[in-house]
Amino acid sequence: MILEYHNFELLNQLKMKNRRTFLKQTGLVSLATLLPINSLFAGDLKTNELAGNENSVSKWADGSRLVVSISMQFEAGGQPVNSESPFPQNMQKGFVDLPGETWYQYGYKEGIPRMLDNWDKFGIKVTSHMVGSAVLKNPALAKEIVERGHEAAAHGMNWSTQYSMDYETEKKFIKDGADAIKKVTGFDPVGYNANWLRRGPNTLEILQELGFKYHIDDLSRDEPFLIKVKEKDFAVVPYTIRCNDIVLIEGKNFSADQFARQVIMEFDQLYKESENKRRQMSISFHDRIGGTPQMVAAATEIITYIQKHKGVSFRRKDEIAKMAYNDKSILRE
Amino acid sequence: MILEYHNFELLNQLKMKNRRTFLKQTGLVSLATLLPINSLFAGDLKTNELAGNENSVSKWADGSRLVVSISMQFEAGGQPVNSESPFPQNMQKGFVDLPGETWYQYGYKEGIPRMLDNWDKFGIKVTSHMVGSAVLKNPALAKEIVERGHEAAAHGMNWSTQYSMDYETEKKFIKDGADAIKKVTGFDPVGYNANWLRRGPNTLEILQELGFKYHIDDLSRDEPFLIKVKEKDFAVVPYTIRCNDIVLIEGKNFSADQFARQVIMEFDQLYKESENKRRQMSISFHDRIGGTPQMVAAATEIITYIQKHKGVSFRRKDEIAKMAYNDKSILRE
Amino acid sequence: MILEYHNFELLNQLKMKNRRTFLKQTGLVSLATLLPINSLFAGDLKTNELAGNENSVSKWADGSRLVVSISMQFEAGGQPVNSESPFPQNMQKGFVDLPGETWYQYGYKEGIPRMLDNWDKFGIKVTSHMVGSAVLKNPALAKEIVERGHEAAAHGMNWSTQYSMDYETEKKFIKDGADAIKKVTGFDPVGYNANWLRRGPNTLEILQELGFKYHIDDLSRDEPFLIKVKEKDFAVVPYTIRCNDIVLIEGKNFSADQFARQVIMEFDQLYKESENKRRQMSISFHDRIGGTPQMVAAATEIITYIQKHKGVSFRRKDEIAKMAYNDKSILRE
Amino acid sequence: MILEYHNFELLNQLKMKNRRTFLKQTGLVSLATLLPINSLFAGDLKTNELAGNENSVSKWADGSRLVVSISMQFEAGGQPVNSESPFPQNMQKGFVDLPGETWYQYGYKEGIPRMLDNWDKFGIKVTSHMVGSAVLKNPALAKEIVERGHEAAAHGMNWSTQYSMDYETEKKFIKDGADAIKKVTGFDPVGYNANWLRRGPNTLEILQELGFKYHIDDLSRDEPFLIKVKEKDFAVVPYTIRCNDIVLIEGKNFSADQFARQVIMEFDQLYKESENKRRQMSISFHDRIGGTPQMVAAATEIITYIQKHKGVSFRRKDEIAKMAYNDKSILRE
Repeated sequence: MILEYHNFELLNQLKMKNRRTFLKQTGLVSLATLLPINSLFAGDLKTNELAGNENSVSKWADGSRLVVSISMQFEAGGQPVNSESPFPQNMQKGFVDLPGETWYQYGYKEGIPRMLDNWDKFGIKVTSHMVGSAVLKNPALAKEIVERGHEAAAHGMNWSTQYSMDYETEKKFIKDGADAIKKVTGFDPVGYNANWLRRGPNTLEILQELGFKYHIDDLSRDEPFLIKVKEKDFAVVPYTIRCNDIVLIEGKNFSADQFARQVIMEFDQLYKESENKRRQMSISFHDRIGGTPQMVAAATEIITYIQKHKGVSFRRKDEIAKMAYNDKSILRE
Repeated sequence: MILEYHNFELLNQLKMKNRRTFLKQTGLVSLATLLPINSLFAGDLKTNELAGNENSVSKWADGSRLVVSISMQFEAGGQPVNSESPFPQNMQKGFVDLPGETWYQYGYKEGIPRMLDNWDKFGIKVTSHMVGSAVLKNPALAKEIVERGHEAAAHGMNWSTQYSMDYETEKKFIKDGADAIKKVTGFDPVGYNANWLRRGPNTLEILQELGFKYHIDDLSRDEPFLIKVKEKDFAVVPYTIRCNDIVLIEGKNFSADQFARQVIMEFDQLYKESENKRRQMSISFHDRIGGTPQMVAAATEIITYIQKHKGVSFRRKDEIAKMAYNDKSILRE
Repeated sequence: MILEYHNFELLNQLKMKNRRTFLKQTGLVSLATLLPINSLFAGDLKTNELAGNENSVSKWADGSRLVVSISMQFEAGGQPVNSESPFPQNMQKGFVDLPGETWYQYGYKEGIPRMLDNWDKFGIKVTSHMVGSAVLKNPALAKEIVERGHEAAAHGMNWSTQYSMDYETEKKFIKDGADAIKKVTGFDPVGYNANWLRRGPNTLEILQELGFKYHIDDLSRDEPFLIKVKEKDFAVVPYTIRCNDIVLIEGKNFSADQFARQVIMEFDQLYKESENKRRQMSISFHDRIGGTPQMVAAATEIITYIQKHKGVSFRRKDEIAKMAYNDKSILRE
Repeated sequence: MILEYHNFELLNQLKMKNRRTFLKQTGLVSLATLLPINSLFAGDLKTNELAGNENSVSKWADGSRLVVSISMQFEAGGQPVNSESPFPQNMQKGFVDLPGETWYQYGYKEGIPRMLDNWDKFGIKVTSHMVGSAVLKNPALAKEIVERGHEAAAHGMNWSTQYSMDYETEKKFIKDGADAIKKVTGFDPVGYNANWLRRGPNTLEILQELGFKYHIDDLSRDEPFLIKVKEKDFAVVPYTIRCNDIVLIEGKNFSADQFARQVIMEFDQLYKESENKRRQMSISFHDRIGGTPQMVAAATEIITYIQKHKGVSFRRKDEIAKMAYNDKSILRE
């Protein structure tokens, strides 16, 4: 896995240029894959509106007042037989939970395509956490995600519990997943998300060794920060459980409209705080859950509301990590 | 079980004719049972409004922009002793959960009759998934469902777990249930729904062998599609868990108004999509749950909202299956 | 336990008279206890408004269009050590769950008094299902409930599981509870509610033998009805789980406002139906749950809404049972 | 632990004076710690508005119509390894739940700081229940809480189950926690809250022996009261489970907006009652739960609503306890 992360800085200098032209001129084809077309610039358009907001001092390199990051999990199709689903977990041994399987199929047949259309409608680029086995099951869809400008981040080779693997097993597990993404989509992932966020004691070292630039398995802050892994910087782009469909919606705790309202309340407070502080908001949608019509309606409500506010940009997590690395005032732990 | 499914096509040609007259003329008495009076035409009236909607191209044979299908489970009365209910599942052995029984009785004493009146109020025909033992327990009510224009679909002979039965046992189980419906109501079911949607490895072949035309135990899509069973077409009319009262309401996850709002959000998104794509929406109500006053109030809210939109028709699942078979552009898997 | 249930009919003939005067004149002191002052007449005032509602034909003896019955459980203080509460059910053996005890104390220290004030505010009389041990623990409060015009119904001597008792044990259990109520409050209960509604195979016979006139442990209908117990009529006044605070609120399924909205939806539908059919609505509040400020606020919302509708009367369950016995058109099962 | 609780009375006489000046004049430095600057007077400002409310008679020494008390738990950082969190409780032995740890870290990195800013915005002083081990883990933050005017109350030395400890173990456990608070913050706690409210049979005697003035582990009333512990008065300042984020929000029962609405309903009813009766309302927020943006948005909604009402004061629990001791009409049990 080869990472050209430093290219980010180059791109940054060219913010106002037409990116397609630039890419042609410089021949940075691999970069075109890493940062699909229009991803940074779509966000820039939004943050241009910041101009009128004279009383606040941006804490973000791109001039944003508040950065919102959406995750879209690509996991369905790669799950083990009889994985957890809305159906009772009481299958007799030797039988396959057939309706449970169709529930997962929904993720790639309807969920991801619907969400992709919705992101386009709003001009938003997201981070797609891709499980290797899911990518191999539906390569065309994985490729389409990247082609439409979204980030492919790694999410393990399959749904195995990662934290208890020994070093070499875990390294292979992470690398295989990333390689599958690279091979299928052409996108070389720089971000990582462990199964149920549960990294083990060796995960961060392995990630650094493999060239990853950030991980998300941390809920401790509402802004990105840098930690030291083997004395080198490593970025943490915080994730969310409380604006995440898997616990709230699939756990049948909330209806879709409750989810929308809670996420909007989250935004309201972070937007206030962002006047004086670097703030990042995270929202997460899983293929078979966040991709239902009712949840895409919820996402529509949320994004429509957020986009009415000045100075908010939607960013992929690789962009956030890049800003973290390049920002001297970034929080360090 | 004899199916005259091809009659559907005939009917289709006569869309604009008065159906009662037609039936008299052609003497298709058995068809009158299969497709109770006014069922197709009530829907057609709704879709007539589509005329003004010039920018969208219908993906449905009947000219609808979006098709909504309501399920009404007829199960109560046929349940085993001490079945799951809102009461604690801790009965001492040898005793009957008497209040639990009255909770089920509510399904046929109040629930179904109330829902039947409500469907009439809105001019909607639904699909009633009937358990054989429930039909035998309350034959007059089963008959009334059919007489009021609704589809009787098969739902097994009783509440047994179906997926682990051997071939012959399962075939008898399915056939007995369908025969009970036919005998009591005169309606020969062409659709099937397994207990908890859990069909086994042989179910589809058995269904085809017995003359069934479609099943609903699939959550993978928001539109009907055809699959191959023993190299012959078989229709799948997708079902829903997320707009279904059993998990959300009986599981005490949602209040009745939350249910209404979530289903309305589901509709909003599917209605948008239906401008360019074939979309089907599914909603499901169980006798003892969806038949309470509060849930019928929720259904009223939902349907009132939906009927304000142009081009939406409410269809029985046998009608949807019919359109799937007759449509050359139907999705095939 | 001596019941003078036939006195109801006498009272009925005197609807428009001042009841205090009447009671003095006829010397019906025991009746004054059975039907506390103003209970029937408060209801009648409400139903007077029915006059303007000319299109509907009342199905109730008192001229009501719809009858609403509220239950107020009086159980706290009588519960066993370490009963279920909002605290984790993991006490080590030999220790008492002290905060759990204070949670129950809330029922008689705050809950019942607050609810009593609220019923008065609205001019409503309710049925209080009293556990014998709770009555003995707080006799003054039990007495006050009756003195303020509410019905005392029996609810067992204590919180024991009733359905598995043998005949004589159960008979003593029921009688002891009723005797405690009679002794403390002067009110001779005619209604019965079993623990968790779970009556056993002998309960109805025992109730009839002891002179009870009705029971509520039945969810099968939205109207009262008569059944035969040993060939004699016995009234069933249906109860509710879906408009009941114990499952929905204490189970942490609903917030107080969700409860209010769901009960209002229930009312809306039953009110519609009551134009052509005898309908009874049931709502239930427990001392330590329904008696919190937030739930009394919910009840206030519900009752305020209901009282805006013409022809609705709030009735004690003994009044409903009486109307059932006296009505020739009553449903019989 | 030395308590100068009688100083409260002195302070009370000086209500209208500038407190900073007074403290300088009298040299009551230790008092400055006990009652941080402006705490009482911020409240007094609110209650000044009572002047216009001529029809109600205050039942509170400070002239308030209704007293609201907010709790802010300071526990995160002191929790045992693999404590309960939103992640599945299924860690393999020998491994640490790393994302779970970051969830707790959120409490002191984001939660408490955000809540502190919010209390300041509204001019509210709260009671912070501090676990000893959490205080030692983040001493600067604990100190800041006190310096910003909030009460530090004791909450045990760590997260151990307290009710089953023997007398001497429990005494050391309580004292160690209080000493840690005193040493780090300079605040000598007078209030106590046991883990999960579960005090044991000896707790109250120990608290009295150690000089504590009140405890909160009682849900029985909506107003403070005095009990006898070894024949001496001891104050109870009731706590809440129903306006508490740990069960409702962390238990995933409610969304943030449901929480806000339910607490507002609680307020509405207590505010009505407070016209004629002493009423106290309690609300509780935990560092890692109540400190999220969405929950601080909920708190903002709640407090904004409450502050629109005349005669309401927000009080620390030590202030409430003080009023209880000094009020001859206080409830005694």
